[in-house]
Amino acid sequence: MSAKQRLNAVRQHLTKEELYAKAVDPVTSMNEERAKATFNIRELTHLLDGGEKSTLLKERFMQEFERDPLFKMDDIHDITKDELRERTMEKFRSLIHHLSNESVDIFKKRMEIVSLIDPGFWTRFGVHYGLFVGALQSNATSGQLGYWFQNGALSLSGMVGCFAMTELGHGSNVPGLETTAIFDEASDQFIIHTPTLTATKWWIGGAAHSATHAAVFAQLIVKGKNYGTKCFVVPLRDPKTYNLLPGVNIGDIGKKMGRDGIDNGWIQFTHVRIPRSYMLMKHTKVSRTGLVKEPKLQQLTYGALLQGRVAMVVDSGNVSKKALTIAIRYAAVRRQFSNSNSNIETKLLDYPIHQRRLMPLMAQTFAMLFTGSEMTAMYNKMMSRLENAKPEDTDLEEVLEMLKETHSTSAGLKAFCTWNCLNTIEACRQACGGHGYSAYTGLAGMYQDFAVQCTWEGDNTILTLQLGRYLISSFREAVKGKKLSPGVGYLNKLDSLIGACCSEKDADAILNPQTIVKGWQVVCANVVKNAALEFEQCIKQGLSIDDAYEQCSQSRLYAAKLHSYGYLFNRFLDGVSKVEGNLKVVLMDVCLLYGLYTIEENAGAFLQYGYFSPTQMDLIRLRTNEFCRAVRDQAIPLVDAFNLSDYVINSPLGRADGDVYVHYFEQVKRSNPQNPHPYFNRLIKPLIEREMNDDIVDEEGGLEEEEDEDDEME
Amino acid sequence: MSAKQRLNAVRQHLTKEELYAKAVDPVTSMNEERAKATFNIRELTHLLDGGEKSTLLKERFMQEFERDPLFKMDDIHDITKDELRERTMEKFRSLIHHLSNESVDIFKKRMEIVSLIDPGFWTRFGVHYGLFVGALQSNATSGQLGYWFQNGALSLSGMVGCFAMTELGHGSNVPGLETTAIFDEASDQFIIHTPTLTATKWWIGGAAHSATHAAVFAQLIVKGKNYGTKCFVVPLRDPKTYNLLPGVNIGDIGKKMGRDGIDNGWIQFTHVRIPRSYMLMKHTKVSRTGLVKEPKLQQLTYGALLQGRVAMVVDSGNVSKKALTIAIRYAAVRRQFSNSNSNIETKLLDYPIHQRRLMPLMAQTFAMLFTGSEMTAMYNKMMSRLENAKPEDTDLEEVLEMLKETHSTSAGLKAFCTWNCLNTIEACRQACGGHGYSAYTGLAGMYQDFAVQCTWEGDNTILTLQLGRYLISSFREAVKGKKLSPGVGYLNKLDSLIGACCSEKDADAILNPQTIVKGWQVVCANVVKNAALEFEQCIKQGLSIDDAYEQCSQSRLYAAKLHSYGYLFNRFLDGVSKVEGNLKVVLMDVCLLYGLYTIEENAGAFLQYGYFSPTQMDLIRLRTNEFCRAVRDQAIPLVDAFNLSDYVINSPLGRADGDVYVHYFEQVKRSNPQNPHPYFNRLIKPLIEREMNDDIVDEEGGLEEEEDEDDEME
Repeated sequence: MSAKQRLNAVRQHLTKEELYAKAVDPVTSMNEERAKATFNIRELTHLLDGGEKSTLLKERFMQEFERDPLFKMDDIHDITKDELRERTMEKFRSLIHHLSNESVDIFKKRMEIVSLIDPGFWTRFGVHYGLFVGALQSNATSGQLGYWFQNGALSLSGMVGCFAMTELGHGSNVPGLETTAIFDEASDQFIIHTPTLTATKWWIGGAAHSATHAAVFAQLIVKGKNYGTKCFVVPLRDPKTYNLLPGVNIGDIGKKMGRDGIDNGWIQFTHVRIPRSYMLMKHTKVSRTGLVKEPKLQQLTYGALLQGRVAMVVDSGNVSKKALTIAIRYAAVRRQFSNSNSNIETKLLDYPIHQRRLMPLMAQTFAMLFTGSEMTAMYNKMMSRLENAKPEDTDLEEVLEMLKETHSTSAGLKAFCTWNCLNTIEACRQACGGHGYSAYTGLAGMYQDFAVQCTWEGDNTILTLQLGRYLISSFREAVKGKKLSPGVGYLNKLDSLIGACCSEKDADAILNPQTIVKGWQVVCANVVKNAALEFEQCIKQGLSIDDAYEQCSQSRLYAAKLHSYGYLFNRFLDGVSKVEGNLKVVLMDVCLLYGLYTIEENAGAFLQYGYFSPTQMDLIRLRTNEFCRAVRDQAIPLVDAFNLSDYVINSPLGRADGDVYVHYFEQVKRSNPQNPHPYFNRLIKPLIEREMNDDIVDEEGGLEEEEDEDDEME
Repeated sequence: MSAKQRLNAVRQHLTKEELYAKAVDPVTSMNEERAKATFNIRELTHLLDGGEKSTLLKERFMQEFERDPLFKMDDIHDITKDELRERTMEKFRSLIHHLSNESVDIFKKRMEIVSLIDPGFWTRFGVHYGLFVGALQSNATSGQLGYWFQNGALSLSGMVGCFAMTELGHGSNVPGLETTAIFDEASDQFIIHTPTLTATKWWIGGAAHSATHAAVFAQLIVKGKNYGTKCFVVPLRDPKTYNLLPGVNIGDIGKKMGRDGIDNGWIQFTHVRIPRSYMLMKHTKVSRTGLVKEPKLQQLTYGALLQGRVAMVVDSGNVSKKALTIAIRYAAVRRQFSNSNSNIETKLLDYPIHQRRLMPLMAQTFAMLFTGSEMTAMYNKMMSRLENAKPEDTDLEEVLEMLKETHSTSAGLKAFCTWNCLNTIEACRQACGGHGYSAYTGLAGMYQDFAVQCTWEGDNTILTLQLGRYLISSFREAVKGKKLSPGVGYLNKLDSLIGACCSEKDADAILNPQTIVKGWQVVCANVVKNAALEFEQCIKQGLSIDDAYEQCSQSRLYAAKLHSYGYLFNRFLDGVSKVEGNLKVVLMDVCLLYGLYTIEENAGAFLQYGYFSPTQMDLIRLRTNEFCRAVRDQAIPLVDAFNLSDYVINSPLGRADGDVYVHYFEQVKRSNPQNPHPYFNRLIKPLIEREMNDDIVDEEGGLEEEEDEDDEME
């Protein structure tokens, strides 16, 4: 019997009254909510997707994957890690086919859907195509790139790649990696070696079972001199047998918090020899005689590293969409407690406190979505200039400035958006009450899969400090009169910002978006200024620049946080300003909710610098409640506009039709078929049928105790 | 080869230089830290454990479990859910033995250790002894209790119990449960029935495979009249065969976020008949002829429900201990980046930002530990009065007041302490960088196991609202001149608190604990007052009391939060004031750090009500940094004082000896033995050896295309 047939059987077997308490059918509740839409849902979907064509494409992909038995996802919580890994490998074939036949842009959209359906597989595929091929593209000369592509790097023919950067003892500190690549002039080879336990390559996705080759980051040592970390292609396995090559020792990293579909491994190299030409020499070159030529502009090599960060801002918005679809749809049909005047229980979504739990997070999701699009455009623009840049260009300064801005902005956004998304998933999970703890309702697994995003591609805390450092140095340049990049342009207006307050007499001036824009500029200017002063104080006390930056790291983090929140609000507002009609009305409510909520959350800063008075802050709290209520009315239409199919959502609580209990019950039964009792005879029967006096320790053992004769003992 | 022998083999095989980069042995780093202790570690352990005897007992239990092969825990991440469940059942036998031979107090300590080693088993054992037996004790007459105990409820002989309260459609709303218990006078029986899908008992721990009997909560219906939710003992399975009894339908709930050792299930009853005497009649009684006698004081029945909440405050402190031991020990030996003057990389613990990540959480853990002891004493005192209380007692009013205070205080503390603990685990996990994502480092599993604590025994958000409601009503009574219970006594001093500010000229007045105590009173008084005014405004607008409370729920949550944080600080300070000597010096630093940090986190409130000025708030930020640094110096001695053995910690990163990399590598290798490639021949070989042109879709198919003749078509 198919799942659908079984569902119908349940439905036929029971009348509506038998299905649900007090005759409130959740499907009816959902339909009520859907009917409240004041805007064209399809129009919003197109806006979020970047146009109708893109929406249609995504819908095509969702349908394709749903029909593909390899992409079956509703049993994913009940298979073992080993089964999951094997199934994940099985999916490669179909994607390679599409990779060969689709344009890059279209394939990227396909992968965006994959990342929502199966983040573990997305990572496993991405290790080869994103990281390994990406390392070739960023580090190989055009001749080398041709060589590896001809040898199958692009078609996955005869080789599968992995990316061996992090080590057991080194994650964030890439220049501090310990693996060595010593040039042996006699043989014209490099010797790749793992000198210590902590130098073991660690977390290497694909190493355990998939990869034949690795892009290995190691210290380039030529004639005894260390030139720093460079990238080398090192063969790991014989592609005919998958036996390890001599000197290569690999193990499985095993069980992780999530994404178990990817086979992370560790690698130790023991004096492994590779031809000199396997060092990727786009930037630094080593000649036959051991002459080392270093690039003039090291910075130009960093651009590609930012792509991952930008993608994670986009991903944070997308994953939040999925989490909120589940929690908000469930809240629209779940009823609990009745108020004094009614027999019918109240929808969770009608409780002001539940609106407070979810509506601000939805607003935040829109902010991340608009910001993600903006960041992608910013990155593409920067990269197209960077790729053509040459050291002798006259506008090089400007290009480097763009790079710096993109680098810092994306660092902060990657950190705060992945944190926001992780917190959103957990808040959504808790908002589903006990059912959020079931694996089948999907949010637990989403948390476990997403959590790694706060660490990889740059530990979030370290990234916030990068942005904080950029803000301090921008401030100091602004003081010296330099015109800054747009993102930090407000630091050129310090005189008008420091000390400014929202002096509007009209109570509802706080609902003017420009008041909020200015508010963020004022608090950011103040907080960046304070961080810069603290930094300068440290310098005066004789600390080195690096130590001074460490010393004021908490202020850097704080400045980065407020800057990023202000940035998100601005991008959201930009996005809304391009929209018209009913859609604009709704989105403006959501945008204002985001503004009010983030101000409330950061009330300390807004009060500290006097931009808002305590009375205004009270009003902001009240208005936040009101906007939560207003957005609540459009909550179901808004999540409908996210346009993720039931298959992609993969949670009975997030069903579009609202029929959550029937689907949840069916899922639980399907996943847990009735079997004979697994251990009654072995464990339970002997336990509950045992002789009771077994339990009592007999203290006597036949010994006749004599009475203590205390007197004599003394 | 034993694990120890293997470790030695690794160590012997490599020189120290080969083990670690730049010759910084983590063991040396750990010893350095341990040598910094300025206080007697053992003395602090005794203080936290409640005396030396208790410490020795815990140590005995830790050793016993470590040596018991049933309690082997280092392979727990690599076994399946079914294996885990079976092993969990296996553990019952040994604990029952101890239960029969140990005093209640001693057995409770044993269970405290169990909860840290294996929370899934702790739950499974607790379902019978805590929930099922607890339901008997709270709801059965003494005759009934004797009957069930004689029938094996205490000795687990011939019966295992479970606790069937929640339903698919009802969690928090216990009065709204749908299961019915209809009295059939003719047969002198109750008919237990599940009328709808949503009435299915859900999440019932032990139902899937363990229980023979359930304590079922159902609507008591006699002669057509509904008397509300009562408790009935319903047999589920034949204890000889474990076959389900007629009319009982049970299924497995399956995979959860964590605690998979416990076999949660769902239960549907179809007109199941039980004798009248199986209704537990301590409070409400139903006679042979269907006369229903209800208790005079319903409130007296609630006391027992609070035990779980109080236990969870204690558990939050204990689990935080474990998480922090891992993250802080790792931070003491993990090195990353070197500063400008040194070749040796810096310990994570030496970075101000890392101190900021962990030290406030350690301070918070101490606050929770001291508060947990205090709450336990408060609960025990209240219960001993409550159990002896009779409706005609003259001091009944006072007892009920104690009950209300304990009820509300424990509600808020359960919520904020479990949230704090969950956030602490995740912060610790992230502070371990990439290695925090490995299952073997323990923090991921801790998160998954602990997360349910925010939902069960009262959804956290709902609990905060209970406290908020109590605060508002206390405020209103205070205004009318009533003398309040100690916990809310500050509301009797409104005149001196509203509008008060910290006017001390001395900059370091903020380091006087009494300044902080007063500060919390001032902000709490203000916030509670605002919530009460908002409530009264709603009443004036014509809302019912319940609706008015709903309307101001965000203010209730906010008031509950600040009140609970202030309460935690006060309990911490009480605890420290009883200590002397060097230990007091250290603990006072930790206590002040907690005070400063929580003020900083809630800066909005302190600035809003003008207790601190913006200048003072700047100072508080700086002082928080300084206290993080001060506490950092004692961080390893402090976590050593938590006194959890390596076995209990069960994380190579949290090893007492600091030798984290060796143990982590060994754990990963032990858990993932080298096996033949699982799917090379089936999946990888055909993939990488396929013919490349398979991938390209041939668009032609032999068709000879004619040229479009546009002109003719028009």
